This record gives sequence, C-alpha cells and structure tokens, in this order.
Amino acid sequence: MPRYKLVLEYDGTDYVGWQRQDNGPSVQGALEKAVLSLTGETVTIRGAGRTDSGVHASGQVAHVDLSRDWQGYKLRNALNAHLAQAKEAVAILSAEPMPDAFDARFSALKRHYLYRILCRPARLALEANRAWWVSKPLDHEAMHAAAQMLVGQHDFTTFRSAHCQAISPVRTLDRLDVSRDGDLIEIRASAQSFLHNQIRSFAGTLKLAGEGKMTPQDVRAALEARDRKACGPVAPPEGLYFMQVDYPVDGNWRPYSNLEQDGPAKAVADIG
Amino acid sequence: MPRYKLVLEYDGTDYVGWQRQDNGPSVQGALEKAVLSLTGETVTIRGAGRTDSGVHASGQVAHVDLSRDWQGYKLRNALNAHLAQAKEAVAILSAEPMPDAFDARFSALKRHYLYRILCRPARLALEANRAWWVSKPLDHEAMHAAAQMLVGQHDFTTFRSAHCQAISPVRTLDRLDVSRDGDLIEIRASAQSFLHNQIRSFAGTLKLAGEGKMTPQDVRAALEARDRKACGPVAPPEGLYFMQVDYPVDGNWRPYSNLEQDGPAKAVADIG
Repeated sequence: MPRYKLVLEYDGTDYVGWQRQDNGPSVQGALEKAVLSLTGETVTIRGAGRTDSGVHASGQVAHVDLSRDWQGYKLRNALNAHLAQAKEAVAILSAEPMPDAFDARFSALKRHYLYRILCRPARLALEANRAWWVSKPLDHEAMHAAAQMLVGQHDFTTFRSAHCQAISPVRTLDRLDVSRDGDLIEIRASAQSFLHNQIRSFAGTLKLAGEGKMTPQDVRAALEARDRKACGPVAPPEGLYFMQVDYPVDGNWRPYSNLEQDGPAKAVADIG
Repeated sequence: MPRYKLVLEYDGTDYVGWQRQDNGPSVQGALEKAVLSLTGETVTIRGAGRTDSGVHASGQVAHVDLSRDWQGYKLRNALNAHLAQAKEAVAILSAEPMPDAFDARFSALKRHYLYRILCRPARLALEANRAWWVSKPLDHEAMHAAAQMLVGQHDFTTFRSAHCQAISPVRTLDRLDVSRDGDLIEIRASAQSFLHNQIRSFAGTLKLAGEGKMTPQDVRAALEARDRKACGPVAPPEGLYFMQVDYPVDGNWRPYSNLEQDGPAKAVADIG
C-alpha cells in the first residue's frame, strides 16, 4: 500500500476538531470521506497534531495509505475536487508519495503554531473566527519578555489542560516569540511536541502580561508552581493556527522520535 | 441633528451588497437596524460607495444624522454592541461628529480598492470567500505592465457594467498597481470615483494579461474600443475590498466635487 503525505489547510470554525468524533463533523472525517468517494477505500488518516474545535491550520500534515499508485499532484487535485463537492473547509496543499516508514505524527521533528490576537476597540468583521479579539491595549514587548520565561525544557503542568492525556508534562519549548504589526499581535511557538491546550494557555497568560497584570517573574512563578490554577484564562481557539511540521531531511524518519518523555504507545498529546 | 462619520469594516459574503434591497440583508440595512435599536430613530445611512454582494470593506465610510450628541467612541461601542447582538458581519471602526456639510459620498476626494487573487493549485480553505482563486500561474509583472495602459483619464466604457447608471463613462484612474507576495497577487486601484464593476472588469482583464493571453497593447486596444465586449470576464466579487476613502483635510468638504463628468443629481456609480 503506497503511503502519501498530505499538507493541509483548514478553517476549523465549523468542525469539532481534527479528530473523528460522534458529536459532529471533523477534519479527519472530511478527509476520510473524500478518500472514500475518490477510491472506494475506507481509510484512517493520521495527522501530526489533533487540533481542537475552532483551531485552524495552514500546514497540518497527515498520512494515508492507498491501494494504488498516484502522482502527487493528481491525488491532490482529485481529493480537492471531492472536498469542494462536499463543501468542506479543507484544502490539500500538496500530496506526495512517501516511504512506509514515514509517519505524519511520529516522524515529526518540530511543530510550529501561530496565535493571532487582534487588539483594537472595534469588534471583528473580516477577522471574525480568525483571531482573538482583545479590545484593550496590550504591551507586546511585555508579552515577549514574559514569554521568554517559558522557553526551554520545563514541567508545563501549569499550561496544560486537565484533560491532557500525555503521561509526562515535560516538554522542550524552542521558541515563544511575540511581535506586533499594527493591531495584530502574533505569538509564534515551536517545539517538537506540545501538550493539550498548551499554546492557548500560554496566550491567555501572556495577555495578562500584556495588560500589566503579570510580570515576567510572575509568569516564571506560575510555571514553577506546576499547578493548573496558576495559569491565566485559556485563550479561545479561533486565534490558533497549526502552521508547519518539520521532518528529517535525510530520509531517516526516526519513528517515535518526538516523544521526549512519553513512551510511543502512551503519548497522545502533540496538540496546541 | 448632529452628523457622524462612520468608518466601516464588513464581510460582504452574506449580504446582497451595501444598498438596502428587498431581496435580502444589506450592509446599509444592518447599520440602519443597529441605529434603530440603539436610538429608536429610523435613519438613512449613506455610504461613500455601493459595494456589490460578496464585496468586502475594511474602510468604507458612511454618514448618519442622529438627534442627540454622542462622543465618537461611545457611539462606536454602542453601535458595535447592537451589531454583535444581531450577529451582523459589520464593525464600526470609528465614529466621529462632523459638520453638516460633510457627505460621505460627495465630499470624497479619492477612493482606494484592493483586489486579491490567490494563485495556487489548491482550492481555498482559510481564504474561501476572501480572494479569487486562480489555479494556474499568473505573471504579475505582465499584469502590472498591462495595468499601466489604463491609468489616467479615459472613457472606460469597456470596463463598466451594462447596468452602470453613471451618465458619463469618463473617469480618471490615479493608480492601478499589481504586486505579488508569495501566492497572493494584489491589485491596488485608486480614483476619485469608479464606475459599476470597473475594478472587477480590470481584474478579469489583467488576469488574461497574466496568462499571456493579452499584451499591454491588447489591453490598450480594449480600452480604446469603448466596447463592453472587449473586456475580459468580470472577476468574482470575493476578491474585492473597499479599503479607504480620502476627504479634504482643510475642512472644505467641497460637496459634489467627486463627480467629474456627471451632474450631482444624476451620478450614481462610485462603486468598484
């Protein structure tokens, strides 16, 4: 069965999230239906990260095994035609054949997320469901300074959902940068893997730093408390975008390499 | 009756257009309803340009007369609260008291529009309804060169809708620039006023230039034909954004000054 890597864009607004669930339409389900209608095959598509309802992607990666050989661009175009017909808010940016050892989730070396805050007095119209609307001014430099307290290898218990199923709360955060372009504040986060709600927990806490309600030292103390109650209110999903996944360029897919602390069979987070 | 200038953002996807009509919800109607629910007054709101269904705005300007005095930011916040409650895709970016001589439409010195083309093989998900999807490559430099044939004062009969109600097809186009940022091609158009469908007609014709199907000389010849049949297929509305309106800074509102060729009572275009 040839394996294919799919790079995906989606608007998460009307989905229950990446993962197939009983309570509504999912991105995974939309893709699996597109494969079924194209090839007649019932497949399971695995993604690099399981985004929550309302979270978007411009570079989610998934893999799927199909019975026949496809040229990448033909598979991309055919799946996009079926997604269009079903009026799904999902697009296949690229499709390419990969070795069997490639696994969208376990071969990932690094995941990149963006969290967008629109900081202005007026409600959002064009950016509704595409950013977190914050009506009061935020000091993005104070946010960036606070963010630097979180970079590195830490126990992130404070910043993960009570529902997070990962065994270990320890992760290595490579980057957490805050920048501003006019009304738009962008938080860029990179790590090999993330805990459930980790980036939205960061964003909610950094907002408090931007309002002057938390100093960088307060954020450091919140991290060191290893206590979910020390986290600011979790930021809403509509600001979060799964941007990119990096894989080895040497063809060594290093299965399970992203699970720093957890065993491969038990780790189940990898989501922002 | 104090007069207020409103700067507006809207997602035009689910509206029949700016203008109040019998066949569905309009942006003007949404604003007039918000005023009614806020103040109890039945008003007519006049915009600087009457955008078509599906066309967006990030800087449309309108004016309205209200019976009482408002501080600008309080009027903005109160109207936004009513627009939010009605789940309208419209936001008031600013509101400010103006002299009675100010007229959102007739005092305008210049109007600025943006037309966005996303040029990539994959269908749009995050940018659905926000840009024109063109799946084949376009040469943006060829498009820019062709666009320069249209700048200046011309009879734009070729580039206006058969339904355009303006008396004269003559307008002065100050700017028509085409630039690229990755997959995104942006066409920026500025003029004191535009004819109906003028910018979408430009965009459709410039796409042909970007595909190599029209040279700059062909575009010049299309202009000089003064024949609607010489125009390329009109580009879809979802790529068009009404960005900004310029007014005199000296407080001389120069009523009717934007109507170069038409008398004030008869000119009815001002739309892209």
